[in-house]
Amino acid sequence: MSAIPADLPLRTDLVGEEPYGAPQLDVPVCLNVNENPYPLDQEVVEAICQRVRQVAPGLNRYPDREHEDLRRALAAYLKKESGTSLRPEQIWAANGSNEIMLQLFQAFGGPGRTVLGCDPTYSMYPEYARDTFTDWELAHRLPDFSLDMDTTIERIEALGPAMVLVTSPNNPTGTPLPMDQLTRLLEACSKVPVAGADPSARPIVVVDEAYIEFRDPGTPSAVSLIGQYDHLAVSRTMSKAFAFAGARVGYLAASQGIVDAVRIVRMPYHLSALTQAAALAALEHTDLQLARVDQLRRTRQETARWLAGQKFHGRPLTVVPSASNFILFGTFPDRDAVFEAMKDEGVLIRAVGPEGYLRVCMGTDAEMERFRQTLVQVLKRF
Amino acid sequence: MSAIPADLPLRTDLVGEEPYGAPQLDVPVCLNVNENPYPLDQEVVEAICQRVRQVAPGLNRYPDREHEDLRRALAAYLKKESGTSLRPEQIWAANGSNEIMLQLFQAFGGPGRTVLGCDPTYSMYPEYARDTFTDWELAHRLPDFSLDMDTTIERIEALGPAMVLVTSPNNPTGTPLPMDQLTRLLEACSKVPVAGADPSARPIVVVDEAYIEFRDPGTPSAVSLIGQYDHLAVSRTMSKAFAFAGARVGYLAASQGIVDAVRIVRMPYHLSALTQAAALAALEHTDLQLARVDQLRRTRQETARWLAGQKFHGRPLTVVPSASNFILFGTFPDRDAVFEAMKDEGVLIRAVGPEGYLRVCMGTDAEMERFRQTLVQVLKRF
Repeated sequence: MSAIPADLPLRTDLVGEEPYGAPQLDVPVCLNVNENPYPLDQEVVEAICQRVRQVAPGLNRYPDREHEDLRRALAAYLKKESGTSLRPEQIWAANGSNEIMLQLFQAFGGPGRTVLGCDPTYSMYPEYARDTFTDWELAHRLPDFSLDMDTTIERIEALGPAMVLVTSPNNPTGTPLPMDQLTRLLEACSKVPVAGADPSARPIVVVDEAYIEFRDPGTPSAVSLIGQYDHLAVSRTMSKAFAFAGARVGYLAASQGIVDAVRIVRMPYHLSALTQAAALAALEHTDLQLARVDQLRRTRQETARWLAGQKFHGRPLTVVPSASNFILFGTFPDRDAVFEAMKDEGVLIRAVGPEGYLRVCMGTDAEMERFRQTLVQVLKRF
Repeated sequence: MSAIPADLPLRTDLVGEEPYGAPQLDVPVCLNVNENPYPLDQEVVEAICQRVRQVAPGLNRYPDREHEDLRRALAAYLKKESGTSLRPEQIWAANGSNEIMLQLFQAFGGPGRTVLGCDPTYSMYPEYARDTFTDWELAHRLPDFSLDMDTTIERIEALGPAMVLVTSPNNPTGTPLPMDQLTRLLEACSKVPVAGADPSARPIVVVDEAYIEFRDPGTPSAVSLIGQYDHLAVSRTMSKAFAFAGARVGYLAASQGIVDAVRIVRMPYHLSALTQAAALAALEHTDLQLARVDQLRRTRQETARWLAGQKFHGRPLTVVPSASNFILFGTFPDRDAVFEAMKDEGVLIRAVGPEGYLRVCMGTDAEMERFRQTLVQVLKRF
């Protein structure tokens, strides 16, 4: 990208900023953006094509602004996936959970408002804050990357944030958020006034569950607490376990009040008729879309074990326990050099998160074999 | 929609606000949201299905964040439609021109920044400003709804806006913007510093050309001036003449600097692989997608003539000359009552714009026949 000419009135705080995103490179093995590596089943492809064929003649007309069929289908999915019954009025979809999150920041953030995150965490969050002029504050996680509950609650009480944003499993560490910690956060928030808001207002707790389908079987999702807490918002996506990143469908599960607040700031007709049709088709084939999740969970366990057995400069690698489809490992004095060497050998991973760590996403068996061989080779060189 | 509970920390300036948009009603004749009323040709439907079938298996992967094929196709479209050659780096697409406009406000607006519009104009603009904490200021149009050039330039000089937003043809009046007025605005802006920006920064002129394909044949588009003016941004959409509202594709044509500024604030992967595929298919069939434009232009001429021949309380109706696919007409002491009576008879138009006016969009011949019959009936009652 070229520099933005100074005579264009770019926002002063954006001068020198770069567009967000991992490099888009043509590399044989892409383990960098946490996708499900398996293409869609032909049965799902057919269902998508059939639905698209149905809506295509009518594309001259605007889509359903309220995407009611899709909200009903997502409610049914949550019932199946997490055992929680929600009404369509408690669901909202958008073009990726990026857009869900931006809409939450637009509705509840803004100048004079603070959002509290718990780092290290997803590197996109500060951009939502920047784009909505919201203060982004942090409560650091403990050395094992779990929440530092006391510090987090102290920060909530000191700041009166409009939102507390926690990620489960956390990205890029893979750390899950236990339900008792979430309820403790929700209870703490219920007693804290929000700076810059109505005196009765209390912080919302937003749980980003982008990778939640990879959690250990039997573990609850934050969705199960929505009925009890009107100030809980859960952001989810079809981009990861659900193998639908290309269709860009994120969704929100929350009290109707939170959904209605988001409806005020959403762009009218933000979700295309094609997106709605394709998502409906995929949701009708949930079992096929999620068919590889068990396998990817096993791959994660095996890869974690394998990584823990590797040594760098005579010391075993550190492997962060993950409940997701990626693993953070390290540490390397020059992680960028390891990243580049891997890339040069055709394996794209990600240099992200705390200093010295690298993140690898779970690929197919063949891709993981290549990853392991390449890492062994590369680490010998340093 | 229910009221948002006061204990949710909704932004204070959003309290009491409603989601934007015309009512979504199940009415036989919908002439309210300025769509092209003709369904897609079967040949285009097939092309869309074929492209979707190609990308569907790979929907587990993220789409091309830079949507390079689509930008090339849109450049080719502009070359064909407006005779202007632009590089793909000067094009940017998003989920409707709503999102294009929001991205422009995010990149160049914000607290301490002003955007100047010329009202009466599109009622969504103040929402972009609200959602980005930008001051929204107005230079009123003349009684014939053309720009008041002297006042507009005085306002530009007085305010130092980051952007001047003009609409051509204007919505809801249908008024085109002559090229000499646009160049006068661009020249005036080139001498005005922007409040709250680098001293060398000059205002951007944004021309919203959502309805430009309906202009009189031979009339230039603002796109033709992009090569000469780095501070000109033209927003367009496939939702109106191009008959593709359901797919949600808006686009920006501008200097590379403006496009690169928008890239900083865009959500990563904002445009789905399905949107990109379907838009490419439709753009390959531009002639079919635009096949009804001449007819709709004739319908506009005939409808304008017919409306001008109608009387209300003994006086001829006022019909605003339109270069678009809609007509603003009136005036009625109680336009809402006329709107409701039309709706009750199955014809949905829009109560929008200056006091007393109604807006009707051009439908099929059968729809327009029904509109005329119903209007005659309804006006007799008042």
